[in-house]
Amino acid sequence: MKIQPLDDRVLVQPATENETTASGIIIPDTAKEKPRRGTVVAVGNDKDLQKLIKKGDEILYGKFTGDELSYDGVDYLVISQGDILAKLN
Amino acid sequence: MKIQPLDDRVLVQPATENETTASGIIIPDTAKEKPRRGTVVAVGNDKDLQKLIKKGDEILYGKFTGDELSYDGVDYLVISQGDILAKLN
Amino acid sequence: MKIQPLDDRVLVQPATENETTASGIIIPDTAKEKPRRGTVVAVGNDKDLQKLIKKGDEILYGKFTGDELSYDGVDYLVISQGDILAKLN
Amino acid sequence: MKIQPLDDRVLVQPATENETTASGIIIPDTAKEKPRRGTVVAVGNDKDLQKLIKKGDEILYGKFTGDELSYDGVDYLVISQGDILAKLN
Amino acid sequence: MKIQPLDDRVLVQPATENETTASGIIIPDTAKEKPRRGTVVAVGNDKDLQKLIKKGDEILYGKFTGDELSYDGVDYLVISQGDILAKLN
Amino acid sequence: MKIQPLDDRVLVQPATENETTASGIIIPDTAKEKPRRGTVVAVGNDKDLQKLIKKGDEILYGKFTGDELSYDGVDYLVISQGDILAKLN
Amino acid sequence: MKIQPLDDRVLVQPATENETTASGIIIPDTAKEKPRRGTVVAVGNDKDLQKLIKKGDEILYGKFTGDELSYDGVDYLVISQGDILAKLN
Repeated sequence: MKIQPLDDRVLVQPATENETTASGIIIPDTAKEKPRRGTVVAVGNDKDLQKLIKKGDEILYGKFTGDELSYDGVDYLVISQGDILAKLN
Repeated sequence: MKIQPLDDRVLVQPATENETTASGIIIPDTAKEKPRRGTVVAVGNDKDLQKLIKKGDEILYGKFTGDELSYDGVDYLVISQGDILAKLN
Repeated sequence: MKIQPLDDRVLVQPATENETTASGIIIPDTAKEKPRRGTVVAVGNDKDLQKLIKKGDEILYGKFTGDELSYDGVDYLVISQGDILAKLN
Repeated sequence: MKIQPLDDRVLVQPATENETTASGIIIPDTAKEKPRRGTVVAVGNDKDLQKLIKKGDEILYGKFTGDELSYDGVDYLVISQGDILAKLN
Repeated sequence: MKIQPLDDRVLVQPATENETTASGIIIPDTAKEKPRRGTVVAVGNDKDLQKLIKKGDEILYGKFTGDELSYDGVDYLVISQGDILAKLN
Repeated sequence: MKIQPLDDRVLVQPATENETTASGIIIPDTAKEKPRRGTVVAVGNDKDLQKLIKKGDEILYGKFTGDELSYDGVDYLVISQGDILAKLN
Repeated sequence: MKIQPLDDRVLVQPATENETTASGIIIPDTAKEKPRRGTVVAVGNDKDLQKLIKKGDEILYGKFTGDELSYDGVDYLVISQGDILAKLN
């Protein structure tokens, strides 16, 4: 990945809504304010962040969290650690 | 539980309203602003949090506290330690 | 008491308004913004709080302070230490 | 005094407006936003506060500062140290 | 001076507007938002403040800064250190 | 470069919108709220900043981030470290 | 200079708008929100500030930054370090 988040931020590829994942979470289309899920593709340089979150982790975050960007036709989010609600094991 | 809250957050399964629990608390349907009760199903990695709250604890929290998510058809809340008002012994 | 406040919070049973207490304080019904009085029934785990406030203390707090909850038909408030104005000796 | 302020608060008996004190300060009735004066009747347990303010000190504070309470028919204010503008020597 | 400011506050006697001082500063009547000038008549107990400001210093401060009070017919301001813009040498 | 940002700020020359860079990022004209990209031309004196960002780095930042200035007919932005979302490797 | 800024503030003599300086910066009259430029004529007593900014430095700052004052017919600004965007070398 050529995009390196700074500090305590992660770069996330959001999951498609209504998708049933291997871990079994369904977030229905009508749940407008519910958290969303994505896969971490790059982790910032913050040490505490790196203990908690690794590349490849699936995380949950609030619907209006993060800054959007596009790379090679794929949409990503840059999300701060404090906006990550949980990760999926 | 496959959902792991980060930092000082807990994952809570909210109790049904109007329910009379073993510990005797009744929160009537009409008490719109009163705290709600739930059972902790996962605890974040924060050390101070882990001393205070264990998996299985019943806790009280404000009505508009936390972020909702769904897992296998069950609704949960992700709640920060600072929004937990009390636990039931 | 089965309800254990967290951190620097106390559980308080509010006094009835217009009541004349043994310590002689009267808070008239018309004094809408004046502090209210209650009896502490449980104290949080914060060490500084525990030096200042004991179970059984009568305290004064602002009228719109705290989160209400009901237990066995009795109303309580959960109040943070910073919202306690004074205690009665 | 049976009312013990907590932390960095003092209990104050406000002076009557338009009064000329021994220290010579007059705060006219028309000066709606000007500081008011009162006598400290109890001091909180904060160590820094206790070095600065003693029981019996006359202090100045802003007009809308503090929480009012009544005791044996006398009105008092509970005021935080940060809201005390000056004391009179 | 019988009025002793607390902490990091000073007691200031404001200069008359439109006055030309020995140090040559003129603040015209029409400059409604410009800083004002005054003479320090008492200094609070804060150590850092006492290194910077002495009794007798002329200081500049914002127009809406400070709390007004009257003493023996003279108007004063109580001003926090953070609201002092500069002093005149 | 004659302009030296202070503290944790960088001076950035914004990329032209709709441009396809060597690193392959396209930010379309219609994405009004998406992050923008620029090249760092000067770095502030903050030590932590200097470990993360070097002159010549391409960075991403929010659309309404930073203060604009003009130098020899070229537009620049002064951006704080906390507003840098990511850098491109 | 007889005006001594306190703490982390500098006293600045603003440059005339539309002026082309020796360092080549032009800030056109129409750029209403762009930073402005000035010359530092006095530096506060803050140690960190004094390492970064010397008397005589040209600095850039936001258009609505600082408190205005007049001295011997010349207009000045008192600006905090945090509002200085950059200096010109």
